[in-house]
Amino acid sequence: AMVYSVVTRMKDMRVILASKSPRRRDLLEKQLGIPLTIVPSTFNEDLDKSKYSTPQEYVKDTCLGKLNEVGSRPGLAFDVLIAADTVVIQGGRILEKPQDREHAIEMLASLSNTEHIVCSAVAISRKREGSEAVIKAFTVDTKVRFANLSKKDIEAYVDTGEPMDKAGGYGIQALGATLVTGIEGCYYNVMGFPLQRFCAEMEDLV
Amino acid sequence: AMVYSVVTRMKDMRVILASKSPRRRDLLEKQLGIPLTIVPSTFNEDLDKSKYSTPQEYVKDTCLGKLNEVGSRPGLAFDVLIAADTVVIQGGRILEKPQDREHAIEMLASLSNTEHIVCSAVAISRKREGSEAVIKAFTVDTKVRFANLSKKDIEAYVDTGEPMDKAGGYGIQALGATLVTGIEGCYYNVMGFPLQRFCAEMEDLV
Repeated sequence: AMVYSVVTRMKDMRVILASKSPRRRDLLEKQLGIPLTIVPSTFNEDLDKSKYSTPQEYVKDTCLGKLNEVGSRPGLAFDVLIAADTVVIQGGRILEKPQDREHAIEMLASLSNTEHIVCSAVAISRKREGSEAVIKAFTVDTKVRFANLSKKDIEAYVDTGEPMDKAGGYGIQALGATLVTGIEGCYYNVMGFPLQRFCAEMEDLV
Repeated sequence: AMVYSVVTRMKDMRVILASKSPRRRDLLEKQLGIPLTIVPSTFNEDLDKSKYSTPQEYVKDTCLGKLNEVGSRPGLAFDVLIAADTVVIQGGRILEKPQDREHAIEMLASLSNTEHIVCSAVAISRKREGSEAVIKAFTVDTKVRFANLSKKDIEAYVDTGEPMDKAGGYGIQALGATLVTGIEGCYYNVMGFPLQRFCAEMEDLV
């Protein structure tokens, strides 16, 4: 494998990230040093969940929807276009961003003292001059275990404002670190972008 | 449990971190928002490894050595004093910081395509007016799995300079993220400080 070398190669490419998540941007741009252009997708994230046999297929299709919406804009020049989507899965149920304070408290109470799955989908479009774009999409699951949280703890955490823009209502990379006893799999996948798997999948595309 | 509430309580305390690791400082100060005074220990980290039946006991004793050296300085006022130490364990062998480029390459080659343990020890001294200091120490293990790395990949990574000040020769929180396929346990423990467990252990000390 040449996982780190992929980063060096991508520094010379025109890379577009079709996501407005500051965490994904920081992971690729600040942590790995890959310069990005941010072009958020306007794809309507309202696919019918009942049509999918697994949450993973739903997330992957949402992600491909974002990729295709941005990728089909006329006049957009790039070498690599990246879209991503992340959800929390608990007992087959999908948790997205909480709608309000009460919803966030309810979500965190349901995650307390138990395990859930964080699933991120990534879709990549690689364009080379004179060829059709090559599209790749995949999902990565990480298991996350929460500590046994008191009601007071949940409320104090929600009052920091951190849960509101985050799938499942917590940010593992911020104060939410105090809630997670351990994970199984990729940490960056829980943040919203599976860095190692992304590099591995880019190997035959760079 | 009141894991997050511990953070709020600690903001009003005089907290000393007996470590010069910028990563530990960032985790406690930037991520959790706990103001710190940094007082690096001068403890000589040269305990005889052959006297310990497990690497974990060696790491814990090194950590207690740091805590006691700083804690016994006359005139040092604090409410909470924290020391920490981190090592990589592979097949019972302890990997500390690489001595030079060749050593870093050798370490990373030995970690490639296999699992190892990152063990962090934390020692805490809690002082309350009119009482003896209460001392607590514990270790946390996290399993880390590396991708199958090519020689070229290892050399390119070592040439970034990142391995040199890090136990095991990699930084999971930086470019080293591209090398790690997954972990089992606490991510912050791999960075050098097990945030969640620390908060849980602080519960009866705040």
